Amino acid sequence: MKLGAYLDRRRAEVNGALETLLPRPEGPAARLLETMRYAVFSGGKRIRPVLALAACEAFGGCVEDVLAPAAALELVHTYSLIHDDLPAMDDDDLRRGRPTAHKAFGEAEAILAGDALLTLAFEVLATRPAGAAMAARRAEAVALVARRAGYSGMVGGQLADLEAGRKPPAEAPLEWIHRHKTGALLSASVEIGALHAGAAAGDRAAMARYGEAVGLAFQIADDLLDRTASAEALGKTPGKDEKSGKATYPALLGLDASRREADRLVALALACIPVTVKEPAFLDALARYAVDRTH
Amino acid sequence: MKLGAYLDRRRAEVNGALETLLPRPEGPAARLLETMRYAVFSGGKRIRPVLALAACEAFGGCVEDVLAPAAALELVHTYSLIHDDLPAMDDDDLRRGRPTAHKAFGEAEAILAGDALLTLAFEVLATRPAGAAMAARRAEAVALVARRAGYSGMVGGQLADLEAGRKPPAEAPLEWIHRHKTGALLSASVEIGALHAGAAAGDRAAMARYGEAVGLAFQIADDLLDRTASAEALGKTPGKDEKSGKATYPALLGLDASRREADRLVALALACIPVTVKEPAFLDALARYAVDRTH
Repeated sequence: MKLGAYLDRRRAEVNGALETLLPRPEGPAARLLETMRYAVFSGGKRIRPVLALAACEAFGGCVEDVLAPAAALELVHTYSLIHDDLPAMDDDDLRRGRPTAHKAFGEAEAILAGDALLTLAFEVLATRPAGAAMAARRAEAVALVARRAGYSGMVGGQLADLEAGRKPPAEAPLEWIHRHKTGALLSASVEIGALHAGAAAGDRAAMARYGEAVGLAFQIADDLLDRTASAEALGKTPGKDEKSGKATYPALLGLDASRREADRLVALALACIPVTVKEPAFLDALARYAVDRTH
Repeated sequence: MKLGAYLDRRRAEVNGALETLLPRPEGPAARLLETMRYAVFSGGKRIRPVLALAACEAFGGCVEDVLAPAAALELVHTYSLIHDDLPAMDDDDLRRGRPTAHKAFGEAEAILAGDALLTLAFEVLATRPAGAAMAARRAEAVALVARRAGYSGMVGGQLADLEAGRKPPAEAPLEWIHRHKTGALLSASVEIGALHAGAAAGDRAAMARYGEAVGLAFQIADDLLDRTASAEALGKTPGKDEKSGKATYPALLGLDASRREADRLVALALACIPVTVKEPAFLDALARYAVDRTH
Protein backbone atom coordinates (compact mmCIF):
# COMPACT_ATOMS: atom_id res chain seq x y z
CA MET A 1 0.00 0.00 0.00
CA LYS A 2 1.21 3.51 -0.82
CA LEU A 3 1.55 6.05 2.00
CA GLY A 4 -1.31 8.17 0.66
CA ALA A 5 -3.78 5.29 0.76
CA TYR A 6 -2.45 4.22 4.17
CA LEU A 7 -2.90 7.74 5.56
CA ASP A 8 -6.44 7.96 4.15
CA ARG A 9 -7.44 4.64 5.71
CA ARG A 10 -5.90 5.36 9.12
CA ARG A 11 -7.31 8.89 9.23
CA ALA A 12 -10.81 7.58 8.53
CA GLU A 13 -10.42 5.12 11.42
CA VAL A 14 -9.16 7.88 13.72
CA ASN A 15 -12.01 10.20 12.72
CA GLY A 16 -14.47 7.40 13.46
CA ALA A 17 -12.94 6.92 16.92
CA LEU A 18 -13.05 10.67 17.59
CA GLU A 19 -16.74 10.71 16.54
CA THR A 20 -17.60 8.15 19.21
CA LEU A 21 -15.52 9.92 21.89
CA LEU A 22 -17.18 13.33 21.40
CA PRO A 23 -20.94 13.16 22.06
CA ARG A 24 -23.44 15.22 20.06
CA PRO A 25 -23.83 18.70 21.56
CA GLU A 26 -26.98 18.69 23.70
CA GLY A 27 -27.98 19.47 27.29
CA PRO A 28 -26.37 22.16 29.47
CA ALA A 29 -22.87 21.37 28.11
CA ALA A 30 -24.01 21.70 24.47
CA ARG A 31 -21.97 24.80 23.66
CA LEU A 32 -18.86 23.32 25.23
CA LEU A 33 -19.20 20.13 23.18
CA GLU A 34 -19.89 22.20 20.07
CA THR A 35 -16.64 24.12 20.59
CA MET A 36 -14.73 20.89 21.25
CA ARG A 37 -16.11 19.25 18.10
CA TYR A 38 -15.48 22.36 15.99
CA ALA A 39 -11.80 22.30 16.90
CA VAL A 40 -11.36 18.54 16.59
CA PHE A 41 -13.15 18.17 13.25
CA SER A 42 -11.33 20.87 11.32
CA GLY A 43 -9.39 18.77 8.83
CA GLY A 44 -6.27 18.08 10.87
CA LYS A 45 -3.65 15.72 9.45
CA ARG A 46 -4.02 13.29 12.41
CA ILE A 47 -0.25 12.71 12.37
CA ARG A 48 -0.07 11.77 16.06
CA PRO A 49 -2.79 9.08 15.99
CA VAL A 50 -1.48 7.70 12.69
CA LEU A 51 2.01 7.44 14.21
CA ALA A 52 0.54 5.59 17.21
CA LEU A 53 -1.28 3.17 14.92
CA ALA A 54 1.79 2.66 12.71
CA ALA A 55 3.99 2.00 15.76
CA CYS A 56 1.47 -0.48 17.16
CA GLU A 57 1.31 -2.27 13.80
CA ALA A 58 5.09 -2.27 13.44
CA PHE A 59 5.44 -4.18 16.74
CA GLY A 60 2.72 -6.66 15.81
CA GLY A 61 0.05 -5.17 18.10
CA CYS A 62 -3.70 -5.05 17.60
CA VAL A 63 -4.53 -1.77 15.84
CA GLU A 64 -8.13 -1.93 17.09
CA ASP A 65 -6.83 -1.83 20.71
CA VAL A 66 -4.88 1.35 20.16
CA LEU A 67 -7.48 3.30 18.16
CA ALA A 68 -9.06 5.08 21.14
CA PRO A 69 -5.69 5.89 22.82
CA ALA A 70 -4.45 7.15 19.43
CA ALA A 71 -7.50 9.40 19.13
CA ALA A 72 -6.77 10.67 22.67
CA LEU A 73 -3.43 11.99 21.38
CA GLU A 74 -5.33 14.05 18.81
CA LEU A 75 -7.48 15.45 21.65
CA VAL A 76 -4.31 16.54 23.45
CA HIS A 77 -2.95 18.08 20.25
CA THR A 78 -6.23 19.91 19.57
CA TYR A 79 -6.37 21.32 23.12
CA SER A 80 -2.82 22.65 22.69
CA LEU A 81 -3.74 24.34 19.40
CA ILE A 82 -6.86 25.98 20.90
CA HIS A 83 -4.89 27.40 23.81
CA ASP A 84 -1.92 28.42 21.62
CA ASP A 85 -4.23 30.42 19.36
CA LEU A 86 -5.70 32.49 22.23
CA PRO A 87 -5.18 36.28 22.23
CA ALA A 88 -2.90 36.01 25.30
CA MET A 89 -0.72 33.49 23.45
CA ASP A 90 -0.06 33.48 19.67
CA ASP A 91 -3.26 35.48 18.98
CA ASP A 92 -4.22 33.70 15.76
CA ASP A 93 -7.53 34.32 14.00
CA LEU A 94 -7.26 31.54 11.45
CA ARG A 95 -6.45 27.84 11.77
CA ARG A 96 -6.70 25.47 8.81
CA GLY A 97 -8.56 28.10 6.81
CA ARG A 98 -11.32 28.65 9.40
CA PRO A 99 -11.75 31.05 12.34
CA THR A 100 -9.93 29.77 15.43
CA ALA A 101 -12.10 28.43 18.27
CA HIS A 102 -12.06 31.64 20.30
CA LYS A 103 -13.01 33.65 17.19
CA ALA A 104 -15.90 31.31 16.40
CA PHE A 105 -17.21 30.65 19.94
CA GLY A 106 -15.63 33.15 22.34
CA GLU A 107 -12.55 33.14 24.52
CA ALA A 108 -14.07 31.54 27.64
CA GLU A 109 -15.55 28.78 25.49
CA ALA A 110 -12.16 28.18 23.84
CA ILE A 111 -10.25 28.00 27.15
CA LEU A 112 -12.79 25.58 28.62
CA ALA A 113 -13.05 23.47 25.45
CA GLY A 114 -9.26 23.05 25.60
CA ASP A 115 -9.45 22.08 29.26
CA ALA A 116 -12.24 19.59 28.55
CA LEU A 117 -10.37 18.01 25.60
CA LEU A 118 -7.24 17.48 27.71
CA THR A 119 -9.34 15.97 30.49
CA LEU A 120 -11.22 13.71 28.07
CA ALA A 121 -7.92 12.51 26.61
CA PHE A 122 -6.83 11.21 30.00
CA GLU A 123 -10.21 9.59 30.59
CA VAL A 124 -9.83 7.72 27.29
CA LEU A 125 -6.21 6.70 27.99
CA ALA A 126 -7.28 5.41 31.43
CA THR A 127 -10.20 3.32 30.15
CA ARG A 128 -9.15 2.04 26.70
CA PRO A 129 -8.35 -0.67 25.75
CA ALA A 130 -10.76 -2.14 28.33
CA GLY A 131 -10.14 -5.23 30.46
CA ALA A 132 -8.38 -5.93 33.76
CA ALA A 133 -5.35 -7.39 31.96
CA MET A 134 -4.70 -4.00 30.30
CA ALA A 135 -5.00 -1.86 33.46
CA ALA A 136 -1.25 -1.57 34.06
CA ARG A 137 -0.67 -0.46 30.45
CA ARG A 138 -3.50 2.07 30.70
CA ALA A 139 -2.02 3.61 33.86
CA GLU A 140 1.38 3.70 32.17
CA ALA A 141 -0.12 5.33 29.06
CA VAL A 142 -1.62 8.12 31.18
CA ALA A 143 1.67 8.72 32.98
CA LEU A 144 3.63 8.72 29.73
CA VAL A 145 1.38 11.20 27.93
CA ALA A 146 1.14 13.42 31.05
CA ARG A 147 4.93 13.61 31.34
CA ARG A 148 5.35 14.47 27.65
CA ALA A 149 2.50 17.00 27.66
CA GLY A 150 3.19 18.75 30.98
CA TYR A 151 5.61 21.32 32.39
CA SER A 152 8.64 19.22 31.48
CA GLY A 153 7.27 18.64 27.96
CA MET A 154 4.81 20.37 25.65
CA VAL A 155 3.45 23.06 28.00
CA GLY A 156 6.99 23.93 29.12
CA GLY A 157 7.98 24.24 25.47
CA GLN A 158 5.02 26.48 24.71
CA LEU A 159 5.89 28.97 27.46
CA ALA A 160 9.58 28.94 26.49
CA ASP A 161 8.47 29.68 22.90
CA LEU A 162 6.41 32.67 24.07
CA GLU A 163 9.29 33.93 26.20
CA ALA A 164 11.65 33.52 23.23
CA GLY A 165 9.38 35.85 21.25
CA ARG A 166 10.37 38.60 23.68
CA LYS A 167 14.13 38.10 22.99
CA PRO A 168 16.34 38.24 19.88
CA PRO A 169 15.91 34.91 17.95
CA ALA A 170 19.62 34.05 18.33
CA GLU A 171 19.21 33.86 22.11
CA ALA A 172 16.24 31.52 22.09
CA PRO A 173 16.97 27.91 23.10
CA LEU A 174 15.41 26.86 19.79
CA GLU A 175 16.15 23.16 19.82
CA TRP A 176 14.96 22.85 23.42
CA ILE A 177 11.73 24.63 22.48
CA HIS A 178 11.00 22.43 19.45
CA ARG A 179 11.97 19.28 21.31
CA HIS A 180 9.42 20.10 24.00
CA LYS A 181 6.70 21.99 22.15
CA THR A 182 6.38 19.57 19.22
CA GLY A 183 8.74 16.62 19.75
CA ALA A 184 7.37 15.52 23.12
CA LEU A 185 3.83 14.71 22.00
CA LEU A 186 4.92 13.06 18.74
CA SER A 187 7.29 10.97 20.80
CA ALA A 188 4.45 10.05 23.18
CA SER A 189 2.36 9.00 20.17
CA VAL A 190 4.75 6.36 18.91
CA GLU A 191 5.43 5.25 22.49
CA ILE A 192 1.70 4.70 23.11
CA GLY A 193 1.50 2.54 19.99
CA ALA A 194 4.55 0.51 21.03
CA LEU A 195 3.34 0.23 24.66
CA HIS A 196 -0.05 -1.22 23.72
CA ALA A 197 1.63 -3.58 21.25
CA GLY A 198 3.68 -4.94 24.16
CA ALA A 199 7.04 -3.74 22.81
CA ALA A 200 10.06 -4.18 25.11
CA ALA A 201 11.25 -1.17 27.13
CA GLY A 202 14.37 -0.76 24.97
CA ASP A 203 12.35 -0.73 21.77
CA ARG A 204 9.95 1.77 23.28
CA ALA A 205 12.83 4.07 24.20
CA ALA A 206 14.19 3.80 20.65
CA MET A 207 10.75 4.65 19.27
CA ALA A 208 10.59 7.67 21.58
CA ARG A 209 13.79 8.96 19.93
CA TYR A 210 12.30 8.23 16.50
CA GLY A 211 9.19 10.22 17.44
CA GLU A 212 11.16 13.14 18.77
CA ALA A 213 13.28 13.36 15.61
CA VAL A 214 10.17 13.17 13.41
CA GLY A 215 8.61 15.90 15.55
CA LEU A 216 11.57 18.22 15.13
CA ALA A 217 11.62 17.54 11.38
CA PHE A 218 7.89 18.34 11.18
CA GLN A 219 8.38 21.59 13.08
CA ILE A 220 11.20 22.75 10.80
CA ALA A 221 9.14 21.75 7.73
CA ASP A 222 6.17 23.78 9.06
CA ASP A 223 8.42 26.79 9.61
CA LEU A 224 9.84 26.39 6.10
CA LEU A 225 6.33 26.23 4.65
CA ASP A 226 5.42 29.38 6.56
CA ARG A 227 8.14 31.11 4.52
CA THR A 228 7.54 29.54 1.15
CA ALA A 229 3.91 28.37 0.75
CA SER A 230 0.80 30.31 -0.28
CA ALA A 231 -2.00 31.26 2.12
CA GLU A 232 -4.28 28.84 0.31
CA ALA A 233 -1.92 25.92 0.78
CA LEU A 234 -1.34 26.80 4.45
CA GLY A 235 -4.90 27.62 5.51
CA LYS A 236 -3.47 30.59 7.38
CA THR A 237 -1.54 33.78 6.69
CA PRO A 238 2.00 32.88 5.55
CA GLY A 239 5.07 34.85 6.63
CA LYS A 240 3.60 35.51 10.06
CA ASP A 241 6.60 34.04 11.89
CA GLU A 242 9.00 36.17 9.88
CA LYS A 243 7.03 39.38 10.47
CA SER A 244 6.73 38.73 14.19
CA GLY A 245 10.47 38.04 14.45
CA LYS A 246 9.72 34.59 15.84
CA ALA A 247 12.66 32.30 16.55
CA THR A 248 12.56 29.54 13.91
CA TYR A 249 15.21 27.48 12.15
CA PRO A 250 14.71 29.42 8.87
CA ALA A 251 15.22 32.68 10.81
CA LEU A 252 18.29 31.33 12.57
CA LEU A 253 20.00 29.22 9.89
CA GLY A 254 18.39 30.30 6.61
CA LEU A 255 16.29 28.16 4.26
CA ASP A 256 18.98 25.84 2.88
CA ALA A 257 20.58 24.91 6.19
CA SER A 258 17.11 24.40 7.69
CA ARG A 259 16.25 21.96 4.88
CA ARG A 260 19.50 20.09 5.52
CA GLU A 261 18.75 19.93 9.26
CA ALA A 262 15.26 18.55 8.56
CA ASP A 263 16.76 15.92 6.23
CA ARG A 264 19.32 14.99 8.90
CA LEU A 265 16.55 14.52 11.46
CA VAL A 266 14.63 12.23 9.09
CA ALA A 267 17.77 10.13 8.61
CA LEU A 268 18.18 10.03 12.40
CA ALA A 269 14.55 8.92 12.83
CA LEU A 270 14.99 6.12 10.28
CA ALA A 271 18.14 4.94 12.04
CA CYS A 272 16.25 4.76 15.37
CA ILE A 273 13.72 2.18 14.14
CA PRO A 274 14.77 -1.05 15.92
CA VAL A 275 15.79 -3.95 13.66
CA THR A 276 13.30 -6.10 15.60
CA VAL A 277 10.46 -4.22 13.89
CA LYS A 278 8.86 -6.54 11.36
CA GLU A 279 6.85 -3.98 9.42
CA PRO A 280 8.92 -0.78 9.28
CA ALA A 281 7.55 0.41 5.93
CA PHE A 282 5.05 2.94 7.24
CA LEU A 283 7.23 4.19 10.09
CA ASP A 284 9.80 4.79 7.38
CA ALA A 285 7.35 6.51 5.05
CA LEU A 286 5.85 8.67 7.83
CA ALA A 287 9.29 9.98 8.81
CA ARG A 288 10.01 10.91 5.18
CA TYR A 289 6.57 12.48 4.86
CA ALA A 290 7.54 15.03 7.54
CA VAL A 291 9.84 16.84 5.13
CA ASP A 292 8.61 15.69 1.71
CA ARG A 293 5.91 18.35 1.98
CA THR A 294 8.58 21.04 1.68
CA HIS A 295 10.32 19.71 -1.43
CA MET B 1 -9.06 14.85 68.17
CA LYS B 2 -11.00 18.07 67.44
CA LEU B 3 -11.69 18.99 63.81
CA GLY B 4 -9.37 22.02 63.97
CA ALA B 5 -6.38 19.91 65.02
CA TYR B 6 -7.30 17.23 62.46
CA LEU B 7 -7.49 19.80 59.66
CA ASP B 8 -4.13 21.29 60.68
CA ARG B 9 -2.43 17.91 60.67
CA ARG B 10 -3.92 16.77 57.38
CA ARG B 11 -3.24 20.10 55.70
CA ALA B 12 0.40 19.93 56.74
CA GLU B 13 0.67 16.45 55.20
CA VAL B 14 -1.00 17.62 52.00
CA ASN B 15 1.27 20.65 51.76
CA GLY B 16 4.27 18.37 52.19
CA ALA B 17 3.03 16.14 49.36
CA LEU B 18 2.43 19.17 47.11
CA GLU B 19 5.98 20.39 47.88
CA THR B 20 7.47 17.14 46.56
CA LEU B 21 5.19 17.12 43.47
CA LEU B 22 6.13 20.65 42.34
CA PRO B 23 9.87 20.97 41.63
CA ARG B 24 11.81 24.14 42.45
CA PRO B 25 11.57 26.63 39.56
CA GLU B 26 14.76 26.31 37.48
CA GLY B 27 15.75 25.65 33.88
CA PRO B 28 13.74 26.73 30.82
CA ALA B 29 10.40 25.93 32.55
CA ALA B 30 11.29 28.03 35.63
CA ARG B 31 8.64 30.70 35.09
CA LEU B 32 5.96 28.09 34.47
CA LEU B 33 6.83 26.25 37.69
CA GLU B 34 6.95 29.56 39.55
CA THR B 35 3.40 30.38 38.40
CA MET B 36 2.21 26.87 39.30
CA ARG B 37 3.74 27.08 42.78
CA TYR B 38 2.41 30.61 43.35
CA ALA B 39 -1.15 29.42 42.72
CA VAL B 40 -0.84 26.15 44.66
CA PHE B 41 0.82 27.65 47.75
CA SER B 42 -1.58 30.49 48.40
CA GLY B 43 -3.19 29.35 51.64
CA GLY B 44 -6.02 27.22 50.26
CA LYS B 45 -8.16 25.26 52.69
CA ARG B 46 -7.17 21.91 51.06
CA ILE B 47 -10.75 20.68 51.53
CA ARG B 48 -10.57 18.21 48.64
CA PRO B 49 -7.38 16.42 49.73
CA VAL B 50 -8.55 16.37 53.35
CA LEU B 51 -11.85 14.80 52.25
CA ALA B 52 -9.90 12.16 50.30
CA LEU B 53 -7.74 11.39 53.35
CA ALA B 54 -10.73 11.29 55.69
CA ALA B 55 -12.63 8.95 53.33
CA CYS B 56 -9.59 6.66 53.04
CA GLU B 57 -9.24 6.60 56.83
CA ALA B 58 -12.96 5.98 57.33
CA PHE B 59 -12.77 2.81 55.22
CA GLY B 60 -9.66 1.58 57.00
CA GLY B 61 -7.24 2.41 54.16
CA CYS B 62 -3.60 3.48 54.40
CA VAL B 63 -3.52 7.30 54.51
CA GLU B 64 0.08 7.33 53.30
CA ASP B 65 -1.03 5.59 50.06
CA VAL B 66 -3.60 8.25 49.24
CA LEU B 67 -1.54 11.33 50.08
CA ALA B 68 -0.22 11.92 46.55
CA PRO B 69 -3.59 11.23 44.84
CA ALA B 70 -5.21 13.57 47.39
CA ALA B 71 -2.68 16.27 46.54
CA ALA B 72 -3.48 15.69 42.84
CA LEU B 73 -7.07 16.75 43.57
CA GLU B 74 -5.74 20.06 44.90
CA LEU B 75 -3.77 20.47 41.64
CA VAL B 76 -7.02 20.02 39.69
CA HIS B 77 -8.81 22.49 41.96
CA THR B 78 -6.00 25.04 41.62
CA TYR B 79 -5.98 24.77 37.81
CA SER B 80 -9.73 25.42 37.78
CA LEU B 81 -9.32 28.52 39.96
CA ILE B 82 -6.53 29.93 37.76
CA HIS B 83 -8.60 29.50 34.60
CA ASP B 84 -11.83 30.77 36.28
CA ASP B 85 -10.05 33.96 37.34
CA LEU B 86 -8.90 34.83 33.79
CA PRO B 87 -10.16 38.05 32.15
CA ALA B 88 -12.19 36.03 29.62
CA MET B 89 -13.91 34.17 32.47
CA ASP B 90 -14.73 35.68 35.91
CA ASP B 91 -12.05 38.38 35.52
CA ASP B 92 -10.89 38.41 39.15
CA ASP B 93 -7.86 40.39 40.32
CA LEU B 94 -7.69 38.98 43.83
CA ARG B 95 -7.73 35.44 45.18
CA ARG B 96 -7.15 34.69 48.86
CA GLY B 97 -5.94 38.25 49.43
CA ARG B 98 -3.24 38.15 46.73
CA PRO B 99 -3.16 39.06 43.03
CA THR B 100 -4.53 36.25 40.88
CA ALA B 101 -2.01 34.25 38.82
CA HIS B 102 -2.59 36.20 35.60
CA LYS B 103 -2.20 39.50 37.48
CA ALA B 104 1.06 38.37 39.08
CA PHE B 105 2.64 36.51 36.12
CA GLY B 106 0.70 37.34 32.93
CA GLU B 107 -2.20 35.78 31.13
CA ALA B 108 -0.25 33.32 28.96
CA GLU B 109 1.64 32.13 32.02
CA ALA B 110 -1.63 31.63 33.92
CA ILE B 111 -3.31 29.66 31.12
CA LEU B 112 -0.27 27.40 30.72
CA ALA B 113 0.24 26.97 34.48
CA GLY B 114 -3.36 25.78 34.71
CA ASP B 115 -2.80 23.37 31.82
CA ALA B 116 0.38 22.05 33.42
CA LEU B 117 -1.27 21.58 36.84
CA LEU B 118 -4.13 19.58 35.32
CA THR B 119 -1.65 17.45 33.38
CA LEU B 120 0.53 16.90 36.46
CA ALA B 121 -2.54 15.83 38.45
CA PHE B 122 -3.18 12.99 36.00
CA GLU B 123 0.49 11.98 36.03
CA VAL B 124 0.31 11.70 39.83
CA LEU B 125 -2.99 9.78 39.81
CA ALA B 126 -1.53 7.37 37.23
CA THR B 127 1.68 6.68 39.17
CA ARG B 128 0.75 6.83 42.87
CA PRO B 129 0.45 4.70 44.94
CA ALA B 130 3.23 2.77 43.15
CA GLY B 131 3.33 -0.98 42.60
CA ALA B 132 1.90 -3.38 40.03
CA ALA B 133 -0.87 -4.47 42.44
CA MET B 134 -2.25 -0.91 42.49
CA ALA B 135 -2.24 -0.35 38.69
CA ALA B 136 -5.95 -1.10 38.20
CA ARG B 137 -6.90 1.32 40.98
CA ARG B 138 -4.61 3.99 39.52
CA ALA B 139 -6.22 3.69 36.08
CA GLU B 140 -9.64 3.83 37.72
CA ALA B 141 -8.64 6.91 39.74
CA VAL B 142 -7.62 8.74 36.55
CA ALA B 143 -10.89 7.82 34.81
CA LEU B 144 -12.95 8.85 37.83
CA VAL B 145 -11.32 12.26 38.25
CA ALA B 146 -11.38 12.89 34.49
CA ARG B 147 -15.12 12.18 34.30
CA ARG B 148 -15.87 14.45 37.28
CA ALA B 149 -13.58 17.22 36.03
CA GLY B 150 -14.45 17.20 32.31
CA TYR B 151 -17.26 18.36 30.04
CA SER B 152 -19.86 16.29 31.92
CA GLY B 153 -18.56 17.58 35.27
CA MET B 154 -16.61 20.60 36.47
CA VAL B 155 -15.71 22.21 33.13
CA GLY B 156 -19.29 21.79 31.91
CA GLY B 157 -20.48 23.46 35.11
CA GLN B 158 -18.07 26.35 34.68
CA LEU B 159 -19.29 27.15 31.16
CA ALA B 160 -22.95 26.82 32.21
CA ASP B 161 -22.17 29.25 35.06
CA LEU B 162 -20.71 31.77 32.62
CA GLU B 163 -23.66 31.38 30.28
CA ALA B 164 -26.04 31.84 33.24
CA GLY B 165 -24.39 35.22 33.89
CA ARG B 166 -25.80 36.36 30.55
CA LYS B 167 -29.42 35.48 31.54
CA PRO B 168 -31.76 36.50 34.40
CA PRO B 169 -30.78 34.50 37.54
CA ALA B 170 -34.18 32.80 37.75
CA GLU B 171 -33.57 31.10 34.41
CA ALA B 172 -30.19 29.65 35.33
CA PRO B 173 -30.14 25.91 36.03
CA LEU B 174 -28.56 26.74 39.39
CA GLU B 175 -28.56 23.33 41.02
CA TRP B 176 -27.14 21.73 37.86
CA ILE B 177 -24.38 24.34 37.80
CA HIS B 178 -23.38 23.89 41.46
CA ARG B 179 -23.62 20.12 41.19
CA HIS B 180 -21.15 20.17 38.31
CA LYS B 181 -18.93 23.18 39.01
CA THR B 182 -18.29 22.37 42.70
CA GLY B 183 -20.00 19.09 43.61
CA ALA B 184 -18.28 16.94 40.99
CA LEU B 185 -14.69 17.42 42.18
CA LEU B 186 -15.59 17.17 45.88
CA SER B 187 -17.40 13.97 45.04
CA ALA B 188 -14.32 12.70 43.18
CA SER B 189 -12.21 13.50 46.24
CA VAL B 190 -14.09 11.24 48.65
CA GLU B 191 -14.37 8.58 45.93
CA ILE B 192 -10.57 8.58 45.45
CA GLY B 193 -10.10 8.07 49.19
CA ALA B 194 -12.63 5.23 49.27
CA LEU B 195 -11.23 3.65 46.07
CA HIS B 196 -7.66 3.46 47.38
CA ALA B 197 -8.97 2.12 50.72
CA GLY B 198 -10.54 -0.74 48.78
CA ALA B 199 -14.14 0.21 49.63
CA ALA B 200 -16.90 -1.76 47.90
CA ALA B 201 -18.59 -0.24 44.83
CA GLY B 202 -21.83 0.42 46.72
CA ASP B 203 -20.00 2.26 49.50
CA ARG B 204 -18.07 4.27 46.95
CA ALA B 205 -21.30 5.33 45.24
CA ALA B 206 -22.74 6.36 48.62
CA MET B 207 -19.61 8.39 49.33
CA ALA B 208 -19.94 10.07 45.94
CA ARG B 209 -23.41 11.29 47.00
CA TYR B 210 -21.96 12.43 50.33
CA GLY B 211 -19.26 14.39 48.48
CA GLU B 212 -21.73 15.99 46.11
CA ALA B 213 -23.99 17.13 48.95
CA VAL B 214 -21.01 18.53 50.87
CA GLY B 215 -19.92 20.31 47.68
CA LEU B 216 -23.30 21.94 47.18
CA ALA B 217 -23.40 22.97 50.85
CA PHE B 218 -19.92 24.50 50.51
CA GLN B 219 -20.96 26.43 47.43
CA ILE B 220 -24.06 27.87 49.09
CA ALA B 221 -22.00 28.74 52.18
CA ASP B 222 -19.44 30.54 49.98
CA ASP B 223 -22.21 32.50 48.28
CA LEU B 224 -23.70 33.40 51.66
CA LEU B 225 -20.28 34.57 52.89
CA ASP B 226 -19.95 36.69 49.74
CA ARG B 227 -23.07 38.58 50.96
CA THR B 228 -22.32 38.75 54.67
CA ALA B 229 -18.57 38.63 55.36
CA SER B 230 -15.94 41.38 55.29
CA ALA B 231 -13.28 41.74 52.59
CA GLU B 232 -10.64 40.88 55.17
CA ALA B 233 -12.33 37.60 56.11
CA LEU B 234 -12.90 36.68 52.45
CA GLY B 235 -9.53 37.66 50.99
CA LYS B 236 -11.44 39.20 48.07
CA THR B 237 -14.01 41.91 47.41
CA PRO B 238 -17.36 40.89 48.97
CA GLY B 239 -20.70 41.56 47.30
CA LYS B 240 -19.23 40.93 43.84
CA ASP B 241 -21.79 38.24 42.98
CA GLU B 242 -24.67 40.51 44.00
CA LYS B 243 -23.36 43.47 41.96
CA SER B 244 -22.76 41.33 38.87
CA GLY B 245 -26.28 39.86 39.13
CA LYS B 246 -24.77 36.38 39.33
CA ALA B 247 -27.14 33.46 39.82
CA THR B 248 -26.59 32.20 43.38
CA TYR B 249 -28.88 30.63 46.00
CA PRO B 250 -28.94 33.85 48.08
CA ALA B 251 -29.99 35.78 44.94
CA LEU B 252 -32.64 33.21 44.08
CA LEU B 253 -34.02 32.18 47.48
CA GLY B 254 -32.85 34.87 49.90
CA LEU B 255 -30.45 34.44 52.84
CA ASP B 256 -32.69 32.46 55.21
CA ALA B 257 -33.92 29.90 52.71
CA SER B 258 -30.34 29.49 51.43
CA ARG B 259 -29.14 28.74 54.98
CA ARG B 260 -31.92 26.16 55.36
CA GLU B 261 -30.96 24.56 52.04
CA ALA B 262 -27.31 24.34 53.13
CA ASP B 263 -28.37 22.74 56.43
CA ARG B 264 -30.55 20.26 54.54
CA LEU B 265 -27.61 19.29 52.31
CA VAL B 266 -25.39 18.69 55.35
CA ALA B 267 -28.07 16.42 56.86
CA LEU B 268 -28.27 14.61 53.51
CA ALA B 269 -24.48 14.16 53.43
CA LEU B 270 -24.47 12.74 56.98
CA ALA B 271 -27.24 10.30 56.04
CA CYS B 272 -25.20 9.09 53.03
CA ILE B 273 -22.27 7.86 55.15
CA PRO B 274 -22.58 4.05 55.02
CA VAL B 275 -23.11 2.28 58.35
CA THR B 276 -20.16 0.04 57.45
CA VAL B 277 -17.82 3.00 58.02
CA LYS B 278 -15.92 2.38 61.24
CA GLU B 279 -14.57 5.88 61.79
CA PRO B 280 -17.22 8.35 60.61
CA ALA B 281 -16.28 11.13 63.05
CA PHE B 282 -14.25 13.28 60.64
CA LEU B 283 -16.50 12.68 57.62
CA ASP B 284 -19.27 13.88 59.90
CA ALA B 285 -17.32 16.90 61.15
CA LEU B 286 -16.15 17.88 57.64
CA ALA B 287 -19.73 17.91 56.35
CA ARG B 288 -20.81 20.18 59.24
CA TYR B 289 -17.75 22.39 58.68
CA ALA B 290 -19.08 23.26 55.22
CA VAL B 291 -21.83 25.43 56.69
CA ASP B 292 -20.58 26.14 60.22
CA ARG B 293 -18.44 28.92 58.71
CA THR B 294 -21.62 30.88 57.91
CA HIS B 295 -23.22 30.72 61.38
